[in-house]
Amino acid sequence: MKKSIFALAMLAAGSVHALEAIPSVVQVPADNPMSMAKVELGKQLYFDPRLSIDGTVSCNTCHNVMAGGADDRPTSVGVNGQRGGRNAPTVWNAALLSAQFWDGRAATLEDQAKGPPLNPIEMGMPSEQAVEERLSSIPGYKVQFESIFGEVSYDNMAKAIAAYERTLITMNSPFDRHVNGDKMAMSKQAVKGMQRFEEIGCVSCHSGVNFAGPKMTLGEGFYQKFPLFENDDIAKYNLDEDKGRYEVTKDAADMNSWRVPSLRNIAVTAPYFHNGAVKTLHESVRIMAVSQLGVELKPSEVEEIVAFLNSLTGEFPEQTMPRLPGVAGESLVGSIK
Amino acid sequence: MKKSIFALAMLAAGSVHALEAIPSVVQVPADNPMSMAKVELGKQLYFDPRLSIDGTVSCNTCHNVMAGGADDRPTSVGVNGQRGGRNAPTVWNAALLSAQFWDGRAATLEDQAKGPPLNPIEMGMPSEQAVEERLSSIPGYKVQFESIFGEVSYDNMAKAIAAYERTLITMNSPFDRHVNGDKMAMSKQAVKGMQRFEEIGCVSCHSGVNFAGPKMTLGEGFYQKFPLFENDDIAKYNLDEDKGRYEVTKDAADMNSWRVPSLRNIAVTAPYFHNGAVKTLHESVRIMAVSQLGVELKPSEVEEIVAFLNSLTGEFPEQTMPRLPGVAGESLVGSIK
Repeated sequence: MKKSIFALAMLAAGSVHALEAIPSVVQVPADNPMSMAKVELGKQLYFDPRLSIDGTVSCNTCHNVMAGGADDRPTSVGVNGQRGGRNAPTVWNAALLSAQFWDGRAATLEDQAKGPPLNPIEMGMPSEQAVEERLSSIPGYKVQFESIFGEVSYDNMAKAIAAYERTLITMNSPFDRHVNGDKMAMSKQAVKGMQRFEEIGCVSCHSGVNFAGPKMTLGEGFYQKFPLFENDDIAKYNLDEDKGRYEVTKDAADMNSWRVPSLRNIAVTAPYFHNGAVKTLHESVRIMAVSQLGVELKPSEVEEIVAFLNSLTGEFPEQTMPRLPGVAGESLVGSIK
Repeated sequence: MKKSIFALAMLAAGSVHALEAIPSVVQVPADNPMSMAKVELGKQLYFDPRLSIDGTVSCNTCHNVMAGGADDRPTSVGVNGQRGGRNAPTVWNAALLSAQFWDGRAATLEDQAKGPPLNPIEMGMPSEQAVEERLSSIPGYKVQFESIFGEVSYDNMAKAIAAYERTLITMNSPFDRHVNGDKMAMSKQAVKGMQRFEEIGCVSCHSGVNFAGPKMTLGEGFYQKFPLFENDDIAKYNLDEDKGRYEVTKDAADMNSWRVPSLRNIAVTAPYFHNGAVKTLHESVRIMAVSQLGVELKPSEVEEIVAFLNSLTGEFPEQTMPRLPGVAGESLVGSIK
């Protein structure tokens, strides 16, 4: 195994102790306090395909809370069978990120939730007003919005969805139990994998409570170039075609930069990378070592790190299904072909 | 209001007392006994989009248990944005039907569940074997199938789904409470609507516990021609293009015949009819009276019958979300574009 200068530099900087257990309290913005009623409304909205133009796509379609919070596909399928450009990130623990989307273009869960409904290849609604009109035409939503927020609005829709998403935290992964003192929680192989993960420098980016970088102010993303070092996998998996954060900022310094993704529950959110081009965790670990650290891992080392990553799968709390309010005797999307 | 000979004939036959409360016990086939484990497996399968070729469509996509058991659209959207030919019937109380699908081509819930996965415009799996292989490749499914049935098989998948569906019964609608003696349960208008529903002959078809006809042997459907009488709505809503049960039997006697659909929860399963061409319950009631009974209802009479139909919305029992078993660190549908 060959160590990169980059990894050694991080080791020297003392970042090897940057792994932390998941917090039991999630930060909540002052202007969107949590309440049971708001979370319940947000859950209904999250599961409601009527937020899409033809009633086929809900938030949950691509960020499936029952399936690790994502959709098991390289890129998602929006309205009219259109394909998105990037792999759907998991919604679980997204509340712990300081910036949202692969390119960090939304500061908060509230900002993020306002994107997909109006994205023509995702949910395809023509305007905020069109969403507000549809929500207002559903009596069960109108009464909830008015009681919780005073009125139906696109912003309030996003607030409710964000409030629900802040409840989606997976506690008690074997790693968390390990950090909290249960030395039987992780296998020996996983512990070795964790040490290697720190040693070779993975932790230089994948640190913090969400393995997505150090604690930042909300809205400040933690970015890294990917791919960083030249290697054969770039062409094989088409890893540099998407310019990442550069598409948001048009700043050459952001070329192929990405918000460092969380590694929590990574074992249940295949396929991998921003384009979902890599199907297995083993291959992803091998590529990351080569591409980001200039390190060629031995198969046994990949196995160890994968064992560690498997220990990051937390407990998904049991949830009740929402009941989506209807329009008595009328179809909202009935005439849309 | 003009009474048709047909309606009068049914009145004379004494069918006016054919309305019944929903039963609290559902019939279970001898070869598919219920168990908690089977219902739980069936729920996972029901919500799992990996039963479709590209991982986009689950049973719940079109028969959304959170939204009245259907999908709020004229016809459903299958894999690759393909449109189905008929309106998705609700899954709630489907266990009370003696035949499944609009044309009654499946005798049981088990038979029904085997249709959509292999239907090229619905879930698009190429063969039973392909489904079995995919299920077998998911360790969490394999272990459940082996424990419950002995092995993974397409038939066992259908059995598990059917077992889950037999739990989807909506009790205690205002109508049920009325029939069970609570005379405050239905509004006066709804009671008048019920009387009119019986009087004009709607009940000649929409009788029994599910308002879908008299009790029949499992597999024996209760069919009726629709449209029956010539009228202007046929062309307007294209009601006779689909030949219904004739497409199954090729028997001229079955031309434009349909399994009589349930009216339970009809207020939350718009749009209406086999082609989903009618958006509101009011318009549907008006059309049914003209088309099936030769009766022109006054608007106030339509209102009364709609009030009665609204009283058929039952209580949807709270459900927990299933957790879909993953393939640790691998995507099953990742390479399918």
